[in-house]
Amino acid sequence: MPSSESSAQYSKATRLLAEAIGTAHVRTDEDTRFAASFDNSRYSFMPDAVVLPRHEDDVAEVLRLANEYRVPVTVRGAGSGSAGAAAPLHGGWVLHLAHWNSIEIDSAASMAYVQPGAITGEVDVAAAKHGLFYPPDPSSVKYCTIGGNIATNAGGLRAAKYGVCRDYVYGLEGFLPTGEFVRWGGPVRKYVSGYNMKDLWIGSEGTLGVITKAILKLIPRPTVRHTFLLAFDSDETALEAATALLAEHVVPSVFEFLDIQTVTCAERRNGFPVFPSADLGTKTPLTPAILLVEVDGHAAVVTEDSIRVRTWAQKYALAFRETGDAAEAEKLWNVRRTCSQAMFQLGNAKLNEDIVVPLRSYVPLIRFTREIKQRTRLATPTFGHAADGNFHIHIMYNRDDADQCRRAEEGIFMMMKKVVELGGAITGEHGIGITKSPFLRLQHTEAEINAMLAIRKALDPNGILSPGQIFDVTSIWNYQPVKVTLPWDKH
Amino acid sequence: MPSSESSAQYSKATRLLAEAIGTAHVRTDEDTRFAASFDNSRYSFMPDAVVLPRHEDDVAEVLRLANEYRVPVTVRGAGSGSAGAAAPLHGGWVLHLAHWNSIEIDSAASMAYVQPGAITGEVDVAAAKHGLFYPPDPSSVKYCTIGGNIATNAGGLRAAKYGVCRDYVYGLEGFLPTGEFVRWGGPVRKYVSGYNMKDLWIGSEGTLGVITKAILKLIPRPTVRHTFLLAFDSDETALEAATALLAEHVVPSVFEFLDIQTVTCAERRNGFPVFPSADLGTKTPLTPAILLVEVDGHAAVVTEDSIRVRTWAQKYALAFRETGDAAEAEKLWNVRRTCSQAMFQLGNAKLNEDIVVPLRSYVPLIRFTREIKQRTRLATPTFGHAADGNFHIHIMYNRDDADQCRRAEEGIFMMMKKVVELGGAITGEHGIGITKSPFLRLQHTEAEINAMLAIRKALDPNGILSPGQIFDVTSIWNYQPVKVTLPWDKH
Repeated sequence: MPSSESSAQYSKATRLLAEAIGTAHVRTDEDTRFAASFDNSRYSFMPDAVVLPRHEDDVAEVLRLANEYRVPVTVRGAGSGSAGAAAPLHGGWVLHLAHWNSIEIDSAASMAYVQPGAITGEVDVAAAKHGLFYPPDPSSVKYCTIGGNIATNAGGLRAAKYGVCRDYVYGLEGFLPTGEFVRWGGPVRKYVSGYNMKDLWIGSEGTLGVITKAILKLIPRPTVRHTFLLAFDSDETALEAATALLAEHVVPSVFEFLDIQTVTCAERRNGFPVFPSADLGTKTPLTPAILLVEVDGHAAVVTEDSIRVRTWAQKYALAFRETGDAAEAEKLWNVRRTCSQAMFQLGNAKLNEDIVVPLRSYVPLIRFTREIKQRTRLATPTFGHAADGNFHIHIMYNRDDADQCRRAEEGIFMMMKKVVELGGAITGEHGIGITKSPFLRLQHTEAEINAMLAIRKALDPNGILSPGQIFDVTSIWNYQPVKVTLPWDKH
Repeated sequence: MPSSESSAQYSKATRLLAEAIGTAHVRTDEDTRFAASFDNSRYSFMPDAVVLPRHEDDVAEVLRLANEYRVPVTVRGAGSGSAGAAAPLHGGWVLHLAHWNSIEIDSAASMAYVQPGAITGEVDVAAAKHGLFYPPDPSSVKYCTIGGNIATNAGGLRAAKYGVCRDYVYGLEGFLPTGEFVRWGGPVRKYVSGYNMKDLWIGSEGTLGVITKAILKLIPRPTVRHTFLLAFDSDETALEAATALLAEHVVPSVFEFLDIQTVTCAERRNGFPVFPSADLGTKTPLTPAILLVEVDGHAAVVTEDSIRVRTWAQKYALAFRETGDAAEAEKLWNVRRTCSQAMFQLGNAKLNEDIVVPLRSYVPLIRFTREIKQRTRLATPTFGHAADGNFHIHIMYNRDDADQCRRAEEGIFMMMKKVVELGGAITGEHGIGITKSPFLRLQHTEAEINAMLAIRKALDPNGILSPGQIFDVTSIWNYQPVKVTLPWDKH
C-alpha cells in the first residue's frame, strides 16, 4: 500500500496528467479502477487511475510525470495473465493499451505490424487471409493481447514444434522506463547491432519498458493436420511412451498429457468416460492417463508422421482414436478443453504452476506430484505439454480451510524445489509476476538475481515500472482473490 | 594502448595469475600473444598474456584478479570473427577457450551440451550421427567455435529458413564480468523465470559475461535437397525475382544473390563463364547476376517446392540449371564459394559490411551500391542472403593509395546511412566489435546507446570485459591490418 505521502503525490500527478492529456483519458472512477486492479490470478490491488493514452506522446507524458512524482506505472492489455504481473501492486497508474489494437500484414515479407493491444488470435486470423500463420497459442489466445504475450514470452500448445512468442518477434518499439522512445530490432530477419534489448524486453513482464509496437514473424500455414487420442493405464506408461516418441525425433505440433486425476475430473464433469471400458479391454471402468497428439504440415509429411505415430500408439497405448477431420478432431479435444475447469470439483481454489522439466525427468516429476498428493492429502491433477516438458501442476484446496491452505502452500514449495532439483524451471510460460515471486530464489542464485536487479536499476532508476513485481516476495496465499467471472472463464 | 601505470599493474596481476593457476596456463611469449592479438579482421592489438584455463575455477580466478587489478579480459575462440571483437583493444589478458571443445549429444531430448571451443561444424557432424541437425552455418563453419557464434549471434546461409544461432540456444553457463558463476536457461524448451539474461549474453560480443557451456537445440535432419542456379540480365531483375518468390511464401533453405560485379570477379578467377552465352541466348558473352536457390526437407515437400521454384525460374530467369544430386550441386555452388576471394582482383583491401535491409528495399539497396561505385570510383561487389536481406557489401580499394582509402571511407559511411534510412541494420551477423563501431550511432539513438551502456556498467562496473569494444568509436581505417594467412583463407 502506498503511504499517505505517496498518495498525495499520486493525486497531484494524476491531476497534472489529466490536464496534460485530457480527463477523458485518465479514469479515476471506482469501477474502471477495480476492473484494472487484477488479472486472471484475481488478486486485486487498486490503482489510483487508469490511463487510456491516445498516442505515443501521451505515453511519453505518463512516464515523464511518473518519474517526476515517483508514480508506479503498470502496463495492461487484456489482463488474462496468470501470474499477477498486470496487478498494480503498489497502486499508481495502470497504462491501459487494450484499445491500441491495429494489425497490418506485410504478406510479401511474411511479417505483421501490430499494436500491443491486438488480440493474439486475431493476428493469426489476419495472417491466415494471406496463407500465413502466427503459431504461438496460449490457451487464452482468443482474449490475450500481443503486448501481454511479449511481456510474458507466452508459450502455448504448439511451442515444441513452432516455438514461443520470442521466436516470432523481429522488432519492438516503445519507451524506456525513464520515458525515452526507443526501437529494438526492426523489419529484418537478422539484426546484431548493439545489445539485444529486444529479447531482454520480451519476458520482462512490463518492468523494463513500455511496448507500443511490434513487428512479428509469420510463416507459411500448415495445410493438413492429423489428431490422435491415446489411453494409458498409468501416468508413467503415458509419459514413458511420450518420451519414446520424442526420442524417435517425431515433432508433433501438439502433444498434450493429462494425468489420471485430471481425466477423472473431466469424466465426472462430462458424465461419460473418454474411452469406454470395452475399448480399453477392461471389465470394469478404468480412468486412463491420456495423450493427445497432433501432427501437421504438408500432406505427405502428415501421412508419414501419422504412420509413425500409429505404429507407436499400437505399441504403447491401451487404446487410441485418430482422425484427419477437423470436426472429429474437435471431439477428441473435448477432454483437454474441459479439464481445467473440471478440477474445481476437488476444491474451490487451486495453485496452478506452469513448471518445466527436462525430458529425462518426466516420470520422476509425475511420481512426485503423487507423493505431494499423499503428503498434503490434497489432489494434484497435472496436465501439460509433453513435447516441451511444460506441465501444469495444480494443488486443489478449500480456501476457507486454514489447514488445507497451509498444506497447499507446503506442497507447492516442495514441488518447486523438486522441479529445480530435476534441472527444470519454475515457470515455462506464465512468468513470475507476483504469484511465483516466493519461488524465484529457488531457481536463481543471489548472483543471478543481483545481475537482474542491477539491470532493472540501470534502466529504471526511479523504480516506476511495476514496482514490487518479480523480485519482491509476495506471499500470495495471504491474499484473498476477488470473485469475478472473466471472459475466458467459460472455457 | 595501456598507460605505463596500467602496464605495471597488468604485469603484477599476470605474475599473480601464473602463481595461482600455473605458468603453463599463462603464456607471455611473443608468438602466442601475437597469434591472439587479432581476428579475421586482422587488426592487431597485443595482449599482455594469453590465458589457457584448465577448468571453471581458473576462469573465476582470472576474473577475480582482473577485477582487482583492472586488467582487461578478452575472450577468444577460433578468432574467425570479422568485426574485431576478439582483438584485445586495450591489451590485458586474452582468455583462450578454443581447447574447451567437448560435445555431448542427448539424442532423445534433441539437445547438444557443448563447451565454447567446440567447432560449429563438428557440433553438426555429432548431431548428424543421431539423425539430428544443428542448422546455423556461418561461412566459417568448419573453423569457428560455438562460443564465438553465441557471442556474435552468428547467422549463415540457412538463416531465413532455420534461424540464427540465438534460435538454437536453450541454456548458457558461465561467469559474470565480476566473476560470479551463473546459469541462464537450461535443458528445457520453455523458460521464463526472471529476466532473459541468456539472450542478452547472446550477441553481446564477449562484453557481458564469459560463456563456459551451452545447451543447444537440435532438430530432425532434412533428408532431401534440390539446388537451382539462375542467371539474370541485371541485378535488379534478379532481386525483383527473389522478392517474387518470397512473396509466394516459398521458404528456401539457401537463397544466395551475387551481383554482376561479383560474378565478373568469379568468372575472371575461374577462367570460364558461369553460363555460356549460348545458354543465355546472347550472341556476345554476358555476365549475369546470379541467384542460387536450395530447397530441403521431406522428399514430397522438396518435389513440390522444386516445381514452384522451376515455374518461377522459367518466368523470371534468362537461364537456369538444377540438380537433386549432391555432387552436381557442389558444381553449382562453385561461383558462390570462389566469389569472396576473387574480389581481391579489384583492390588489395576491402571494406566488408554485412548489412540487412527489409524485403521492399532490396532493389533500392543494390541501386545504391552502384551509385556509391560511381561516386567513389571504387568497385562495390555485393552478394548475400536474399531470403533474409543480409547482403555483404564490399568496397574494394588499394590500401597504399591514400585517396582511395578516403573514398572508401566516405563510401562506406554513405552506404551505412542509406541502410538505416531503408529501415535496415548495419550488421546482420558479424556484430559491431571494433570495425563497425564508427557506424553504431547511425543505427541507434543516444537513448538506445545509453540504455545499452547502463546495462554494461551495471554488469561490469570495473570495465573488465573487452573494454573499448562496440561503443567506443575506433576509426579502423587508420590502422594497418597484419599480413597473415589464416586457416579459412584458402576458401
